[in-house]
This record gives sequence, structure tokens and C-alpha cells, in this order.
Amino acid sequence: MERLKVVTVGGGSSYTPELIDGFIRRHQELPVSEYWLVDIDAGKEKLEIVGALAQRMVKKAGIKMTVHLTTHLDEALAGADFVTTQIRVGQLAARIQDEKIPLRYGVLGQETTGPGGFMKAQRTIPVLLALCRKMEEHCPDAWLINFTNPAGIVTEALSRYSPIKSLGICSGANSMLRDIAHAYGVERDEVYARIMGLNHLIFADRIAVNGHDMTDDFIEKLAQGVGSNQLKNIPDIGLPAEFIRALKLYPLSYLKYFYLNRETVEHECQTLAQGMTRGEQSLMIEKSLFELYRDPGLCEKPAALSARGGALYSDTACSIISSIYNNKCEIHVVNVPNQGTTPDLSDTAVIETNAMIDASGAHPLAYGRLPASIKGLIQSVKAFEELTVEAAMTGDKSTALLALASHPLVPSVAVAEQILHDYLAANWNYLPQYTR
Amino acid sequence: MERLKVVTVGGGSSYTPELIDGFIRRHQELPVSEYWLVDIDAGKEKLEIVGALAQRMVKKAGIKMTVHLTTHLDEALAGADFVTTQIRVGQLAARIQDEKIPLRYGVLGQETTGPGGFMKAQRTIPVLLALCRKMEEHCPDAWLINFTNPAGIVTEALSRYSPIKSLGICSGANSMLRDIAHAYGVERDEVYARIMGLNHLIFADRIAVNGHDMTDDFIEKLAQGVGSNQLKNIPDIGLPAEFIRALKLYPLSYLKYFYLNRETVEHECQTLAQGMTRGEQSLMIEKSLFELYRDPGLCEKPAALSARGGALYSDTACSIISSIYNNKCEIHVVNVPNQGTTPDLSDTAVIETNAMIDASGAHPLAYGRLPASIKGLIQSVKAFEELTVEAAMTGDKSTALLALASHPLVPSVAVAEQILHDYLAANWNYLPQYTR
Amino acid sequence: MERLKVVTVGGGSSYTPELIDGFIRRHQELPVSEYWLVDIDAGKEKLEIVGALAQRMVKKAGIKMTVHLTTHLDEALAGADFVTTQIRVGQLAARIQDEKIPLRYGVLGQETTGPGGFMKAQRTIPVLLALCRKMEEHCPDAWLINFTNPAGIVTEALSRYSPIKSLGICSGANSMLRDIAHAYGVERDEVYARIMGLNHLIFADRIAVNGHDMTDDFIEKLAQGVGSNQLKNIPDIGLPAEFIRALKLYPLSYLKYFYLNRETVEHECQTLAQGMTRGEQSLMIEKSLFELYRDPGLCEKPAALSARGGALYSDTACSIISSIYNNKCEIHVVNVPNQGTTPDLSDTAVIETNAMIDASGAHPLAYGRLPASIKGLIQSVKAFEELTVEAAMTGDKSTALLALASHPLVPSVAVAEQILHDYLAANWNYLPQYTR
Amino acid sequence: MERLKVVTVGGGSSYTPELIDGFIRRHQELPVSEYWLVDIDAGKEKLEIVGALAQRMVKKAGIKMTVHLTTHLDEALAGADFVTTQIRVGQLAARIQDEKIPLRYGVLGQETTGPGGFMKAQRTIPVLLALCRKMEEHCPDAWLINFTNPAGIVTEALSRYSPIKSLGICSGANSMLRDIAHAYGVERDEVYARIMGLNHLIFADRIAVNGHDMTDDFIEKLAQGVGSNQLKNIPDIGLPAEFIRALKLYPLSYLKYFYLNRETVEHECQTLAQGMTRGEQSLMIEKSLFELYRDPGLCEKPAALSARGGALYSDTACSIISSIYNNKCEIHVVNVPNQGTTPDLSDTAVIETNAMIDASGAHPLAYGRLPASIKGLIQSVKAFEELTVEAAMTGDKSTALLALASHPLVPSVAVAEQILHDYLAANWNYLPQYTR
Repeated sequence: MERLKVVTVGGGSSYTPELIDGFIRRHQELPVSEYWLVDIDAGKEKLEIVGALAQRMVKKAGIKMTVHLTTHLDEALAGADFVTTQIRVGQLAARIQDEKIPLRYGVLGQETTGPGGFMKAQRTIPVLLALCRKMEEHCPDAWLINFTNPAGIVTEALSRYSPIKSLGICSGANSMLRDIAHAYGVERDEVYARIMGLNHLIFADRIAVNGHDMTDDFIEKLAQGVGSNQLKNIPDIGLPAEFIRALKLYPLSYLKYFYLNRETVEHECQTLAQGMTRGEQSLMIEKSLFELYRDPGLCEKPAALSARGGALYSDTACSIISSIYNNKCEIHVVNVPNQGTTPDLSDTAVIETNAMIDASGAHPLAYGRLPASIKGLIQSVKAFEELTVEAAMTGDKSTALLALASHPLVPSVAVAEQILHDYLAANWNYLPQYTR
Repeated sequence: MERLKVVTVGGGSSYTPELIDGFIRRHQELPVSEYWLVDIDAGKEKLEIVGALAQRMVKKAGIKMTVHLTTHLDEALAGADFVTTQIRVGQLAARIQDEKIPLRYGVLGQETTGPGGFMKAQRTIPVLLALCRKMEEHCPDAWLINFTNPAGIVTEALSRYSPIKSLGICSGANSMLRDIAHAYGVERDEVYARIMGLNHLIFADRIAVNGHDMTDDFIEKLAQGVGSNQLKNIPDIGLPAEFIRALKLYPLSYLKYFYLNRETVEHECQTLAQGMTRGEQSLMIEKSLFELYRDPGLCEKPAALSARGGALYSDTACSIISSIYNNKCEIHVVNVPNQGTTPDLSDTAVIETNAMIDASGAHPLAYGRLPASIKGLIQSVKAFEELTVEAAMTGDKSTALLALASHPLVPSVAVAEQILHDYLAANWNYLPQYTR
Repeated sequence: MERLKVVTVGGGSSYTPELIDGFIRRHQELPVSEYWLVDIDAGKEKLEIVGALAQRMVKKAGIKMTVHLTTHLDEALAGADFVTTQIRVGQLAARIQDEKIPLRYGVLGQETTGPGGFMKAQRTIPVLLALCRKMEEHCPDAWLINFTNPAGIVTEALSRYSPIKSLGICSGANSMLRDIAHAYGVERDEVYARIMGLNHLIFADRIAVNGHDMTDDFIEKLAQGVGSNQLKNIPDIGLPAEFIRALKLYPLSYLKYFYLNRETVEHECQTLAQGMTRGEQSLMIEKSLFELYRDPGLCEKPAALSARGGALYSDTACSIISSIYNNKCEIHVVNVPNQGTTPDLSDTAVIETNAMIDASGAHPLAYGRLPASIKGLIQSVKAFEELTVEAAMTGDKSTALLALASHPLVPSVAVAEQILHDYLAANWNYLPQYTR
Repeated sequence: MERLKVVTVGGGSSYTPELIDGFIRRHQELPVSEYWLVDIDAGKEKLEIVGALAQRMVKKAGIKMTVHLTTHLDEALAGADFVTTQIRVGQLAARIQDEKIPLRYGVLGQETTGPGGFMKAQRTIPVLLALCRKMEEHCPDAWLINFTNPAGIVTEALSRYSPIKSLGICSGANSMLRDIAHAYGVERDEVYARIMGLNHLIFADRIAVNGHDMTDDFIEKLAQGVGSNQLKNIPDIGLPAEFIRALKLYPLSYLKYFYLNRETVEHECQTLAQGMTRGEQSLMIEKSLFELYRDPGLCEKPAALSARGGALYSDTACSIISSIYNNKCEIHVVNVPNQGTTPDLSDTAVIETNAMIDASGAHPLAYGRLPASIKGLIQSVKAFEELTVEAAMTGDKSTALLALASHPLVPSVAVAEQILHDYLAANWNYLPQYTR
């Protein structure tokens, strides 16, 4: 048997059992022989809990896969074929700050959308580029499958600044296909849709169920209230029916942060006043998950894990890895450089769209012009993302200010200045590029 | 002497004496032989007051120019060489509604920026396209020089839907050059700057004073507070110095509506609570101007006229007309279809930028990529403008909703629905395309 | 069983048994229930010979498919799902003229490359657009699968001037994959290559055999002489090894008409002097094929048919039709509008490239910039094709002259004038658009 | 008086008196205080002859300008404001070889068009980039005004590989304006035309005489034989009238090398058989010019100089330098990077087109799409130019082969191999990049 080595950076994450489960189920077509979980010293305890569960799961499955736990990145990377990342620099504590600080100024406090995405990118990009440098040394031909958020911005940084082959992935599109499938009582793989946009800012059209065009039908269903609540970790605030009919596209539920910004921010402020942010809720869920994971009798993915909204991540990641490994020429939705896919964005802009995945990587399907109804929003968020990447690479405060000020959900450059001030103060330890 | 016939549609406007003054001063190089002022029946009284003043001004100047007053558009257009427009469909009463309705929902209420620009475009575009149809019949080779607001949106509609040669003009860029000139104690024509953007959303760089690059120097002056208050009819709210230094561009003062949206809306709400909108102020100014114009002893442009902020319009219009007439190959800032000037906007998008003006029209200077710092804003407002034009042409309410919802200053599609509802109700008599 | 109706226009072609054979072999996945062969009155005899063979083949195969023969196009099209075309306006006699006339002036005389392609397009495009008009009436949702040459030019005309869904197909890319497969002793479906260019002017790179990149290896094989003779109907003239190594791309054998133009034209002139053109050879082959087809004992595709070089057409056509019918999301090489696939050609330019084929049609994989080494050739031939389409649509002689003069293999506009003169004289009966 | 230092590299050229004459006539607006002529040691004798004439011309004119002669480049460049180049690496002997070698194979042998341009670029680009390195050291803010041929290719190399501000100039467009002016009996500055293309491959439309559009009229004149013989050094072979009418553009006479390639090559072969190439003729003219220059009684530009076809160079160069120096915002035709001027070429492609010239350089007028009739030719020659620049920079023989093979006037890659072989052998001493 050929060696197939997969490494997960941030292996101590509570999501890891999902991934393990995915690799076990696909072992026939994707015979991972070595699976390495690597984490930082501070995450060693979690790594050992999750790692032990992983080993029990593999043992129970009876497949030939060894699970290795380590805090030595170099050792883990040596000779790897695929590296996946699911890190969280600063852990949930940093996320909670990302969410709370903008809310002080009446601005959306969300993990990836709005200022939160900016801040997470500043902490995350230097760490992932350092990982790329290590990969260039230890496994230069390996694929980096990134599902660390903000996945689109991170992938743009990696594709611009590292020769390592990388793909950004997210379960968002699959959640939309799943919801379409639910609406028609079919399986997810009987549904096809054309996806276009940026990570957490995608739209579907050309919706086909078993090859029959159901776009208009599904849009009408959507207008009438079916098909909502795509991602479990997104609050369900309905878009006006007339707007959906006018749009003629199926937006990912994250779009509510833009289309109902005023209402969403009010709702978040109330939630915060009453108790806790989404990050704080996640912290509690995580704690209870680790309680479960510790149980030496547990030999499979616990049902409670699906509450975190990551159920589809594993499917998305494993099927894309398999498509590369087996040169399948399948269509998946990934984050890749635009390279002309739509002329309405620059060539280097990372977009999230349908791509053919084979052994040489992702080849997006040409899309043409963006509809006027979504063009402006996508373009303005992309400009924010470009500036965010530049700020993360240079640590230049002026660029950081321009990035925040250019986000369509930031209502004033004066507010941008305040948020930036508070953000930098709160994250100073995680921002080596700003302190050099 | 060759006949040179100029027609001003909306001739009864209080701005007309500015234009007359401009034509008188340039009579040597631009020997207008017939100047026709045309207005609708409802504006006949104003037309006669302004027209009589115009005739007194021409008489005093002692030049060979006849001033004609009429309410018959066909007669006015027959054989015209240049047609200028300065109409206001629904008059100042409509403007006041445009401003007040969005403020009900905490959204910017401004004549051209935000929802106000959308509404004004819906009323104006059908009237100006009807004018174009008349021109195709009576003066197919004449130039239409449009300074009816929203000038950029209107020009986009004209360039897409009529074969009549048209240019959109605005005094904004000239006001910026004037302010640069003030800052350096030189004349306006000693200053050059590269301008890029959309009408009322332009930025300057490559600022040269007598051929010397002063860009960095002027940006620093701007950061320190010099050079503000470019247009008299825009409230003076300063941008943070650090933001200006980061931007490295000189924004038109209208940009405050975007960069300080929260503060501007608050200020407008307070102003409204305390008394009147900008439109209501304009109504008062207009009344007092017409009092002056009635005076048979007045034979020149009254000093009070400059209070309306239109002092530069005349210069801008007359010098561009002269550049066409005399095939001057001069550089002016105009609104023209992009046609590749920047690859970051579509070819048909009307932009406001430097163009070489000769007898065959305006030829914009190739610009290249937009800076990331302003790209997203320009692109998103342009997408709004495209949808606004489409809505104005079709009278389709879904498109109208998409237009309003896509404006970066509208915080929610639900709010967009409310504003659209109130706008359509208030303007029903001026919207034949929606009632067909 | 659902009805699945396929129509072949030009059903009397000697290629038809290939197609029948393909539908029979795929009947499980592509259950064609009605297969209609339609031809013009002048082709009735051939139609009956081929049709009888087709009926015998179907009978022998024992599948549920009825074969219908008709000269009534309307009847054939009514309710069709797929329409394929393989017509030859003016038959082989016109092709022979297409080849001989340019050779008079020392210019390439070839069926699709050079002036021959121009002339064939002038005769063919009006007929196929008339077919589209009929389809709009009788089967507006059917797919038109065009393999009438010049396939790229014809597809560009159809995609611009008809709402009918159409795809242009050619066996060229499959012949390249087959030759790569031969070189490595594997099956064709174990080979993947990225294809880019125009019909009969394509290049391959990213050559993968079972997922392993063999591009450099295959290029070196090619330089050393393996893998040539891709299409049986193309003379085998080898490219210099150093050129292939410099090019780093695998060109279709048709590229010899460009890369070795001088030698090819000399060779053709000699061939002509000694005997006959390729068209005349085809005429002889066709005659002998029809002799075989007449044999009532023949119940399958005769071996001799493969001598015509169309062996792969059937595979190409049937597998693409099946991919649409079954919404397979497979990758095939087709002729489709560029729509941003490469920014080096305009959006409407039809290109030949890899596309994902599903029920909604072909979605090309974004390609990015063309390599400088092939960019100029592709762009200049495409400009010729655009002008050729325009000439065919308008019948404007000036445009026709510009088309011929702009072909890179025409050495002088004076020669272009002569060829055009002779071509129009020889084809007058087939050019209604020029005589209107 | 401010110091204004101009340097001419290749000062010993027989063209220099034209330049001196231009600076003398413009001394009022362009007060050159120091004019340096610099040449290599091998050119010292010519430099002294030309330099002495220059000094006599300046003395006679009675202006304040010192003329310096030197073979020390560093000394000449120190503190320069403008540097012009008119070098000929390998002198006329190399040109004669450039012309003769392709003719051996029946391919155009011309100084700048076809293989000759490739070869000249290989010799010239390294020398001019070395000049740029010196300028970066001694006069980093100076302008490099290049009229060394092939001017377009050279400018593309300079703009890509050096930060020195450079403009490529050529008298071709001015010769076209002059011929239009002759046709209408007006002065050249009463004529405007829009120019687009590449150096020595330009087309004019929007032809205006005193602001009146005369395009159609002039095209008809051209078809009837007026307006030919634009450049004295181009043979006068007429294009067919029908072709000119179809083209609807005014092509530079160099276009005959493409449009009448077969005829031109035949003509050149005959000329060569009968006697001498154009390069050999130039050698004779040059010798006789230097005889004249030696005459100590000669104090002005001799009439015979105009026979070399460079009469307009001086005007072109001096007026562009003055437009930069005086920030004139005039329109001139220059070679500049495309940067979106037309979307049909890449951003870095150097084109020749109308540009506004001010103190900050050249700002081309946005052009939009190229007409289909000339698009393919321009794009294919540009691809050749890109490869030519790359070959000149790298000395890579494969790239050199691709460059020559991709030229539309080279009829076979086998011929390209032969020409390349002979060219490299004949020029080995001038090709350091190929021998490294």
C-alpha cells in the first residue's frame, strides 16, 4: 500500500472527530495511512483528548490508519501529502473580543463578516504563512486545504504570498445544496447549483434537481419561507419575500448581515445585553464537547458535535481531498483566485465558486459578468478583503484603517478609527507584523 | 457671421444668469448668435423674469446675441448646435420630499447622494430621454450638455438609450481645483489634477501646480484642515487627519456622506428637527433671487447668486462648449462612458474623469486600475446607478427595490422597501413609466 | 419509457453509420427512442441507402429505437430533444473548389483552415441559421449539436444570432487524447489534458495520465517523433524538435498549416499537379462507402468507414449528448463563447476548450492569460473568424475582403481580392446573402 | 536662468543637426542651457564633425546654449533633465545584415518590420537598459526620450525593466498628419487624427481638419491615390482602392509590408539582385552628409539631410520635450504602455497612440475595442514583440525561436530556425545576453 499522509494543523480542535469520521468512511477511496494531529504547546491537553478519541474511532473502524499526535510541526509536516488547517489564533477568547468591540460602536460583531473578519485575518494570516514556509521546506508538493476562517481572505493571502498549492474550503455552499435537497426530498448529490461570490457571501442560481431547472421554483419557495436556516450557527432572520423575488438568486444566510444589517446589529446588541455573544456560546459548547470526548468508552463522533454547525465541513474537506487524490474531475465549490472567472473582479481576487477538481487542483467554471444586483456588494467586500490582506502582510496601520473604513457595514471612518484602536490594543500579542 | 444657436432647457432656472454671463464673457471665442431659453408652461413666469434680465445683460454687454424666450420646445430646438439642460422635474417641492422621506427611516436625505439621487433619476430620466427624441428630430447633430442632476446617472441613461451626443458636466472637479489654487495662491488654470470616480464621488491625485507635483504636500495640507469647504452647498464636516493621510487622495466634499455617514445623518436629522432641509433653504434663496431679477435696473448677474453654489457651473459649461466648438483638445473633467478608461468598471459605466475635449467630443485619459482604497465604494455606487437607470427606463418595481437596497448607505432591504413605498406614493404623478 | 428524440440534419452523410453505432452502444444510458435522419431532396438517394443501413443496424442490436427518414425538416424537428448537423452545402464539389481556388494563387487550399474555411462558412451559416429559425418554431428547447465545419466559426454565428442552445463539437481534442493514450499504453479516459484555442487550432498542456503530470515527458516524446499523425485526414509533416521543445505545448496536427505554411502549400501544389485534392480523394472514398452501405447484408458500421477520419466524431457527439441528458457534470472539449474564459479574447469569441457539461449546457473552465507563444496566432485567426461571421451574415463584400485579407496565411490583400472574386463567382448559387 | 540639460546618446548620428535645429528654433519656450552629445569611442570622429557643426549652428543663432562633446557617458548624464537616444548598435553594417539574411529565405528584410526588428531589438535592448542603469545613478528623475528603433519594442523593454521615466517616439504619425494637411492645403497643426496601433503599425481615423470630420472624405482621397508616400524612406506601393474603402482607416505606409507582403518581398529581392538594400543606400547618404558637415562654412542644417526621412523627428522630439517641460497638456502620439487604453491588448503592451503630455508624462486617451479589421494583425505583432523583448532580456534561444516563428510574415518555423541561426552567427559580438 502506498503511503498517504494527512496532517491537520490545529488538531486539538473540537471539530477533529468530524474529520476523522470522514476519513474513516472514505477509507476505501482515500486510503489515508498516516493521520497526524498537530497543535501548539498551549493546546496539548485538548490535542491529547481529541487524539485519544481519534485513535479509538480508527481502532473501532478496523482500518489501516495510524493516528499521530505531536506538538512538533516539522515532524508532522515531513513528507505530508495533504495538510488541513483549523486553527484559531488567540482561541475563543479572541473571537469574543472580535465580536464585542464593534458592538460597542453599534457595528456588527461577527466572527467572519464585518470588522471581526478583519481582526481574525490579522491574527491568522501571519501564522498560516509561517506554516507555508515550513511546508516549502518539509513537503513542498503537498496541498494545503484551508478551512481556517476567514477562509476567503486567508486563501487570498496564501495564493498571493506562497508557492504552496492551497485551496480554501467552507461548508456554506454544501449547506445550501442540502437545504435545496430537503426542499425537494432528494439527496444532496442530486442537486446542482451554480455558486458565485466570496466566502460567506455567496449566491446560487441555475439550481437543478436531477438535471431539471428548478431555479424559479426554488426562489418562490424561498420567498414563501422554505429553505431558510441553512447554517445552524447563523440566526434565522427572514428576508422580505419581495426582495427575494426581485433578487432571483438564493443567498447564503450570512447575507442577512448585509441585507438586514440594521436589524441584525440591533438583535446582536440585545443578545449581548441579555447575556452572551455567539463566541461565548461556542466556548460553552466546546467545554461540554471535551467532557464527552474524555469518555474512554466513546469510539465514534458524538451526536452533540453536530450542534456546532460543522457537520458538513468534514464531507466538504474529505470529498475535495479525494477528488484531488483520485483525479476525479468532479465539481466542488472552493475558494480560488478569480483568474478571469468573472471579469468584474481582478485576476488575483479569491472567489468562492464551482470548480472542477482534479489532480492538478481547482479549475473554476467561467462565469461571465456578475448580475448588477449583487455586483456592487461583492466588489466592495472584495476591496475590503484586498486591503485586509495587505494590512495583515505589512502591519501598516494606515492600510488597516483603509480596510476597516472601506467595509460596507462600517458607517463612518471615525468609527473605523475607534474600532481599529480598540482591536489593536486588545490583540497586540498576536500581531507581530504591527510591532516590528 | 456663422449662426451659433444655443438652447437652455429649463431656461427659467435661477441659475440662468450665470450661464448668460459666461456666454457674454466668452463671446469673442464662442460667438453665440442665438440663445434660446425654453421652459414648461408652469415655469412661464420665471422664464419671463429671467429672460428679461438676460436680455438686459446682453444689451449692456453690446454683443451680437439675440435672446429668445419660449415654451415651445420644438421651435427652440430647430437647428440648435448646443442644448444645455438644467431642469428640475417636480421643482423644489419634489426635492424636499426626496430629502425628508429617507430621514424618516434614519437614512441620508440628500439631493443626489443616496436614495434622493435614485428618486430624482426616476423623475428626470424619462423627461430627458423625451428631449433626446425631440433632438433626434429637430437637431440630430447638436450636443446635449447635461448638468441636470444626478448628472452621472442621467448621462449613463442618455449614453445608453439615445444616439444624441451628450456630455454630463458638474462643477465639482473645478471646485477642487479652485480650492487647490487657493491653497497655493495661484490661479485655477495653473493647477492640474487627475480626477477619477463618479459624479459627486470623485477623487483627485497627481496634483500639479504649474507643473510641479504637489500631491503629497496638498494631502498633508488637507489633513491639517486647509482646503475644505469646496462646494458652498455641502456641509463642512472634517474627515479625520489620519484617514486623509492613509487615503492619499483628495476626495470631493460629497464623500463625507459616505465616509461620515453616521455623523451626517445625525446632523441632518437634527437640522430637520430644528427647521428645514437644504431643499427648503434653496426655496427661500430662489425666491429672494427672483425678487432681485425682477428689478428692471439690474443688468448683470447679482452678487447674491453665488450663494447658491453654482458660480462654477457657468465656467465649466461654457469652457467645455467652447472646447468642442473650437476643437481645442483641452483637458476637462466630464461624465462619459468608461470604455476601458479603468478596467475596474464596465465599458458602459459612466464615470467622471479627465478627458480631452475636441470637436468630436470627450476622450477620457486611460487611468488603469482603481486604488483598492476607493475601488469598492466606486464599484458599489456604480452598481446602484446601473440598477437606478434600469428602473427608470422600465418602471419595474423589483429593479427599483434592488437599486435602493444595493445603495451602500441603505442599512437594510426592509428599509429600502419602506423608502421605495413612500417615494412612489409621493411622486406618482411624475412616474409615467411605473404606471404604464 | 420517456420519449427521447434525436434528429440528424444531413442524415444522408456517409458518417451517419458512426453516429448510429454510437447511439446503439450507449442505448442503456442514452435511450434514444426516435432517431430521425433528414436531408434535402437532392440527397434523398443517399439518405435512403444510409437510412436502410441504420435500420438494419438497429434491428440487429435489438434495441427500442425507431429510425425515421424524411426530407421534411419541419416534421423531423417537431418535439426534438437533440438536433445534430453534418451538412455540406454544395457537397464535395464545392469543397474541391474551396481547395483549388486558393492554390491558384499559391495560398493554402484546405477545407477549414485558411480561405477554404471562409468560403465554407459563407455557404453554411445561412443554412444553419435557417435551421435555427425552424427549431425556434418546432423545438425551441432542443439542443443543437453542431459538427458541421468550420465548427468554430459556425458556432460563433449560431451563438450570436440565435437563441437556440447550441454546442460546437469536433473530434480533434479526442484524437489528441487518444494519441497521448497510445504513447503511454493506456485508455483514452485515463488521460486528461487542458485544451485551449479555436477549432482546428488547439493546444494541449497539463497532460495527466492517471492523475500524474506527464506534460514535459510527452512534449519530449513529441519532439522525438512519437504521437504524430493524430487525425487520419491530415498530412503528417513533422514540426522541428527544437520548436516543439520551445513551445512546451502539444499542438493539434492542423497547426502544421500555420507552422509549416510554406512547406504545406508547396506540398499541396505538388499533390494537385500530380492528381487530386483531399476533397477529390474524399469523393472517391465516399462513393466506395456507399457501395458498401447498399449491401443489404451489412448490419453494422463497415471497417472502411474509419478511413475517413471520423471514427471519433461519434464518440465525441454521443458522450456529450449523454452528459447533457444525464446531467453528468463531465469535462469535455467543446466550442463555446469565451465569456471570460481567457481575457485575451473577447467575450463573444467562440473558443474550443475544456468545459463541464451538465443539463444546462457547457461551462468552460477559466483559463487565464494565453501563453505569448500562441496568443498572437489565436487572436489573429479569431479576428478573421469574427469578420467571416459578419460577412456571412451581411453578405457585404467589403467585410468579406477584410476577412480574407486578415487571415494570417493570405500573403497580400491583392491576392485576397483575387481569391474572393473567384470564390464568389464559383459559389454564387449558394450565397443568397450576397445577392439580395 | 534655470539650467536645462539635454543629452543625446548617439550624438554622432547624422540626424543630430535636425535635433539641434529643433532646439534652436524652440529656444524661447524650451531654453536648453546645456546640450551634450555623447557617443562611443568608435564614433568619436563622427561626433566631432557633427559636434562642430552643432556649435557653429548655435553660435549663428545667438542663443545661450553650450554644446558639449564627450565619450564619457557618466559625465554627460550627471544632472541631466532629458536624455534622447538615437543609437545604432553595430552601425549600418549590422542593419545591412538584418536586411539581407531574411531575404535569403524569401522573407522580408526590413530595418524594423519582420525579422529585422527582432534582430535590432536583440542588439539594442541590452545597451539601452545599461543606459537606464546609468541614469538611475546619475539622473534618476530625467526623462528618457527614445527614438532608437525598433522604438515600440525598445520602449516596452524599458517600461518593463527600468524605473526610469521613458517615452518612445517616432515621426510616423506626424508624417500622416502632414500628408493629410497637404491633401487639404492646411498646416499640420490644423489637422487632428486618432491614432492607434504599434510603432510602424498604426492606423488613423477620426480625421478632423479644423474641427470638421473629414474621415470618409480622406479615405476616399486615399483610395483614389492621394496622400501616399508618407515617409520618404518607405517604398511607395499602393494598396488596392477597394481594400482602403473596406478598411475605413488610414494606414501608415509601413503597413504595406503586411498588406502587400508577397509583392514587397519580391520587390526587395529584385532590388537586392540589382544592387543594394535600403541599408546600403543609407550608408552612401550618410557618407555624403558627413562630407557636407565637415565644411566649416556650414552653419545650419543642410537641405540634403531631409533626404533621410528624418525631417519630422526633430519636430516630434522637441515638441514632446517642450510639452513635458512646460506642462502643456498637449496631445501627441507616443509609445506608452497600454494600461487599459484598449482592452484588446494586455496592460503592459506598449502601444502607439494619442496621449496627453504634461509634466508627469504621457496619458493615453482611452480607445475602447480595436476594429476587427486590424485587431488580429496588431495582436499578433504585439505577441511577437513581447516574445522579442523576453528573448532580448534572457538570451534564451527557445524564446528567440518562438518570437521569430510567431511573426506573421515568417512563413514557417523551419524558416524561423534558419534565420535565427544565421542572425545569431552574424551578430554574436553584440549579444552578450546569449553568450553568458
